[in-house]
Amino acid sequence: MKSGLNFLIAAKRCEIAELQQLALTSALVNVTGRLVHGLQRERGLSNLFLASQGEQFARARCEQIAECQRLDAELRGCFDTLDTEPARVGNGARLFSRIAYVLQGLDALQGLRERVETRAWPTRRITDAYARLIAGLLGVVFEAADSASDPEVSRLLVAMFNFMQAKEFAGQERAAGAGLFAAGRAHFAEQQRLLLLIDSQERCLKVFNEFASAEVAALGADSQGAPHLAELERLRRILCTAPDTGTLDTQLSQTWFDCSSRRMDRMKSVEDGLARELVQVCQHKVAAATADLSGYETLDAVAAREGDALSFFQDAAPTPLATTVGTGMPGLPVPAQGYGLHLERSILELVQDQARRLQAMSDELETVRASLNERKVIERAKGLLMAHRHLSEEEAHKTMRQMAMNQNRRLIEVADGVLAMAEVLPARSP
Amino acid sequence: MKSGLNFLIAAKRCEIAELQQLALTSALVNVTGRLVHGLQRERGLSNLFLASQGEQFARARCEQIAECQRLDAELRGCFDTLDTEPARVGNGARLFSRIAYVLQGLDALQGLRERVETRAWPTRRITDAYARLIAGLLGVVFEAADSASDPEVSRLLVAMFNFMQAKEFAGQERAAGAGLFAAGRAHFAEQQRLLLLIDSQERCLKVFNEFASAEVAALGADSQGAPHLAELERLRRILCTAPDTGTLDTQLSQTWFDCSSRRMDRMKSVEDGLARELVQVCQHKVAAATADLSGYETLDAVAAREGDALSFFQDAAPTPLATTVGTGMPGLPVPAQGYGLHLERSILELVQDQARRLQAMSDELETVRASLNERKVIERAKGLLMAHRHLSEEEAHKTMRQMAMNQNRRLIEVADGVLAMAEVLPARSP
Repeated sequence: MKSGLNFLIAAKRCEIAELQQLALTSALVNVTGRLVHGLQRERGLSNLFLASQGEQFARARCEQIAECQRLDAELRGCFDTLDTEPARVGNGARLFSRIAYVLQGLDALQGLRERVETRAWPTRRITDAYARLIAGLLGVVFEAADSASDPEVSRLLVAMFNFMQAKEFAGQERAAGAGLFAAGRAHFAEQQRLLLLIDSQERCLKVFNEFASAEVAALGADSQGAPHLAELERLRRILCTAPDTGTLDTQLSQTWFDCSSRRMDRMKSVEDGLARELVQVCQHKVAAATADLSGYETLDAVAAREGDALSFFQDAAPTPLATTVGTGMPGLPVPAQGYGLHLERSILELVQDQARRLQAMSDELETVRASLNERKVIERAKGLLMAHRHLSEEEAHKTMRQMAMNQNRRLIEVADGVLAMAEVLPARSP
Repeated sequence: MKSGLNFLIAAKRCEIAELQQLALTSALVNVTGRLVHGLQRERGLSNLFLASQGEQFARARCEQIAECQRLDAELRGCFDTLDTEPARVGNGARLFSRIAYVLQGLDALQGLRERVETRAWPTRRITDAYARLIAGLLGVVFEAADSASDPEVSRLLVAMFNFMQAKEFAGQERAAGAGLFAAGRAHFAEQQRLLLLIDSQERCLKVFNEFASAEVAALGADSQGAPHLAELERLRRILCTAPDTGTLDTQLSQTWFDCSSRRMDRMKSVEDGLARELVQVCQHKVAAATADLSGYETLDAVAAREGDALSFFQDAAPTPLATTVGTGMPGLPVPAQGYGLHLERSILELVQDQARRLQAMSDELETVRASLNERKVIERAKGLLMAHRHLSEEEAHKTMRQMAMNQNRRLIEVADGVLAMAEVLPARSP
């Protein structure tokens, strides 16, 4: 018959296993980020290659493809090391489903490259195809953030996801801007798209700032700092204020591309900083939990010496969850993980400490995940508008932003309202 | 190198493993409910035994203790069958931590029974001790509900938890009422406590109704129906309207106890209905997911025959999560689980269907879990009030209810407000 101490130890072992899994997932996120960066460069070079009618950038593009193939193999290797035995991973079903999706995309990549090579597809279609693949890769990161059971790690993964997302919007902005300059002609719809991409970057960076540690947030702020951005902002102004169908200086295409690329490289180094912090935090937490576990395990021998079992019923001992009138959990201080283990403490006290700490972690996790849920709600509302009003995604997004501005409400509030309306909306015509 | 199909299959296997784990957890919840019911009876008989100065109910109490010991052993056996290998259970750390806590209580039960036997503790202290142990058992059910990864199962577990909670409030009401009648004298504070317990029952039954299936909700409504409740309501009126320190008919103590007990037995049969439904739903879902899996596995051979890989980049194919401007997930219909598998469907389509279904499940789960989160928020706010205003749990609860009534707001809104104030509250004096 297993004792309370057995389950105290089992709970701690689960915590350690989850943290080790998180360390693996964080490594996966890191490799994913590097492949995303590589694909963003490949997309950029492919755009320049196409813009030059295949006369320039062929070699740089080839080198970048080789680099991406190396990263692709590394990521697939990383996927292979994941233990796909059922129930080994927190939300395995969703993570594996994302991976299955992204592998379909990676398998299709060679075909896409041939379309670039032969210039069989227009630039915009090529750009969108890369964007779709990158969206799949970011989906893996999103899922990793959504599955993390530790609030501190989850916080870093949410920061990471949002920063990677911001960088991808920056990449799409680079492509769109380069296309406009290369065409030598302004185009109203594309200009609007640029503004939306800039706005989306800022939204993601805001969430990143909210969740990153002070140190990494400072790195992030530096990467977006004034000295670097002045040139970009000047080119943005030229792009976005040109009258519709007005001419643009085609020479600026390369300037724009280089300037945007430098910014993206700076952003990559922020991601690297985040990735290092993720590794450190996981290691530190595993070490602390392992120390706790060792402490518990030495208790096995002394467990029999435990004092008055009736202390369970003492008024001073709060229940882990207040579920009855008359027995509650007062707002007691939450013990820090890794506290020194005093042998004189009763197993009951250890159990109560553990329960309170897990509860506090779960509460904090709820807060961190709220930002991910907001994203899901906004995406669902967008999908609904697209389906019922026959809008493109961009139009749906713009509609909601406009509603938010007009009503002086947050985007999430507008999205909630849209979803609440869902029941009264007519079914989509087939 | 694992393919997309490998991960599609791995994701489905994870789903099945999670559902099987849920079936085990549901069985655990069922046994827990039976032990709770047994302990509620044991508490009631102990109260009567104490009220009669140990002259009556000794035998019935002994028989009930034997029944509880049998159930205690059954539950411990159930705990032992749980695979405590790390990462085998979704949120193992929290579930095992709850079990560790409850085992401490079960270990202390014999000591409590001796205190009843020797009449060493006053009745109220005995009642509260049983309530604390039952709260620990309900904590296990709460955790099971909170960890369920399938929205339909989670919905049933939330209904179950709230119904069990309502029944426990009914049990506490039975004890408090029996005590008042036995004492033959009304007591204002106890009358207020009765009203609070009645109100708490209604609150829990409301949540139960929201989440139970129509069939089980009808069972629940029947158990609370007018024909059964008339006598109870008459006795409640006598108890609650007697002037403070006014006399009560001691003969009614037994009448009250029997009437309350019949109601609790009826409530137990609702729990049994819920438990049966849980088993059925889990079995049905495992069967459906297993059928899907078999379908996927036959694809292994034909996977190589897959068509144009470039379909990944087709505009018609939505990404599982819209993470970029320009590629989104329109509000497409979500395929039902267990759809017939058409071999002509591409693996990409299967992956996309799976991703959409998992996303829809996750969205629905979020909705179901919101009710659990509300409970956590209310409990935290209560704990805060207790700590900072030096209130008992009952007083804190009453304070929040009063605020809600005065401000015409929901209890959860008041709780949110209390927590928002937390930062400006002074630290608790030591």
